[in-house]
Amino acid sequence: MSNFSMTIAPRFYETDALGHINNAAIAAWFEVARINFLESLLAEEPGVATASQWVLASLHIDFVAETFYGSDVTATVTQARIGNTSLTVTCEMSQKGQVTVRGVAVLVFLDGPGGRPAPVPVALRQHLASEGTSD
Amino acid sequence: MSNFSMTIAPRFYETDALGHINNAAIAAWFEVARINFLESLLAEEPGVATASQWVLASLHIDFVAETFYGSDVTATVTQARIGNTSLTVTCEMSQKGQVTVRGVAVLVFLDGPGGRPAPVPVALRQHLASEGTSD
Amino acid sequence: MSNFSMTIAPRFYETDALGHINNAAIAAWFEVARINFLESLLAEEPGVATASQWVLASLHIDFVAETFYGSDVTATVTQARIGNTSLTVTCEMSQKGQVTVRGVAVLVFLDGPGGRPAPVPVALRQHLASEGTSD
Amino acid sequence: MSNFSMTIAPRFYETDALGHINNAAIAAWFEVARINFLESLLAEEPGVATASQWVLASLHIDFVAETFYGSDVTATVTQARIGNTSLTVTCEMSQKGQVTVRGVAVLVFLDGPGGRPAPVPVALRQHLASEGTSD
Repeated sequence: MSNFSMTIAPRFYETDALGHINNAAIAAWFEVARINFLESLLAEEPGVATASQWVLASLHIDFVAETFYGSDVTATVTQARIGNTSLTVTCEMSQKGQVTVRGVAVLVFLDGPGGRPAPVPVALRQHLASEGTSD
Repeated sequence: MSNFSMTIAPRFYETDALGHINNAAIAAWFEVARINFLESLLAEEPGVATASQWVLASLHIDFVAETFYGSDVTATVTQARIGNTSLTVTCEMSQKGQVTVRGVAVLVFLDGPGGRPAPVPVALRQHLASEGTSD
Repeated sequence: MSNFSMTIAPRFYETDALGHINNAAIAAWFEVARINFLESLLAEEPGVATASQWVLASLHIDFVAETFYGSDVTATVTQARIGNTSLTVTCEMSQKGQVTVRGVAVLVFLDGPGGRPAPVPVALRQHLASEGTSD
Repeated sequence: MSNFSMTIAPRFYETDALGHINNAAIAAWFEVARINFLESLLAEEPGVATASQWVLASLHIDFVAETFYGSDVTATVTQARIGNTSLTVTCEMSQKGQVTVRGVAVLVFLDGPGGRPAPVPVALRQHLASEGTSD
């Protein structure tokens, strides 16, 4: 289990005319959580890779319940699994103790000239394995 | 096959520091395509339902290739399938003849007091079936 | 001088292809700072007014220097002046100790049936005067 | 008078919980109108300058009336004035025949190594003068 967690304060302009936070804002929050997780991971293994070497291949979001303006949201990375050239990040968002969003993003690691998909550096693989996040 | 298709002109602020259109902007475009499709569908069966009766339950996006500022994007609804209380909308985006994005959204139909999931009106089901979009 | 100040962490999707934070994101941050300031002000004089009674009449932003992804931004309300039916909020943003943005927003206070411009409640006027923010 | 005009279809995610288009979306639309105007101007004097040589120095927006989802907005550049190193673009937006937004943006022209403010190319100055937009 990863321990990565961060707080997101909903912004008024992220609401829509239905009175709740719009789905596109939630996709944007997921990027915020994902990149913060990745940067904290890379900071623990300095020199191995940079955040800009990861590109988003796919995104899946389940809107479990509405999210509202006025209370903080907690975004937690509940799992980070490394494949050969990919990193799958599972994220859960909750507000007032209720899960509102579940998301899964697949990132591909690029390396070498031209930026081709490449095996995820061993140090990152071992780091996540040691935390038990990788499976 | 649905014939619904629309043009989206990428906006400069939708780019990010990697020089391409950011994934959150693409999630937002998908809402634009989905709602335009839904509104055009509902306009063909007036009085049956309103756009605000549909809520987004899930979103899946595959980023097949980068999208750039400077050329129009075509968003096409390639399939619209009706379940019991849901509508699954499949969308493809392309730029300069190349597919860049594939997305699937599941919408749930709400009706009655309190807005509970309810069976999709028969008229919409028949309409989509007659177009061959529903399968 | 008002003491209202808050931290904004730039988000990656708020950058644009020029490599800095896009101007539209900064207009959005200004709303975040303005509403947080207003909510903290209203919380100190409970029952007098609600945040939704204020509408934005005008916005002026000077982009003094570029803002970048990667370091926190401090947004400070440096002045809040009350007119007859309006509140003028001056805000300064800085990053790494350098001022990057100066903004002025004029909000109009609405009250009564139909929400017409109305005199700003005396309690708010006195509150800001006592803080010396109003001049 | 400039003749530059474009249509913007409000997007649902650009609304906020007050039921109208949020001010930050309008700041973003102003960028769309400004850049489209600039690109059309530069296209008429090829080779003289590129859009990326202009940076936004300031932005002023008057919110004259609410803008809503559901009808197209027309954005018109009503004036473009060239100073020594700057271009001041005045824009008006209207919906259903009513002016909703008036905006003024000041752009600075950058040239040479390091991108310093530089005199606006004579060809652009003459072009705008001949159209009578410059004064």
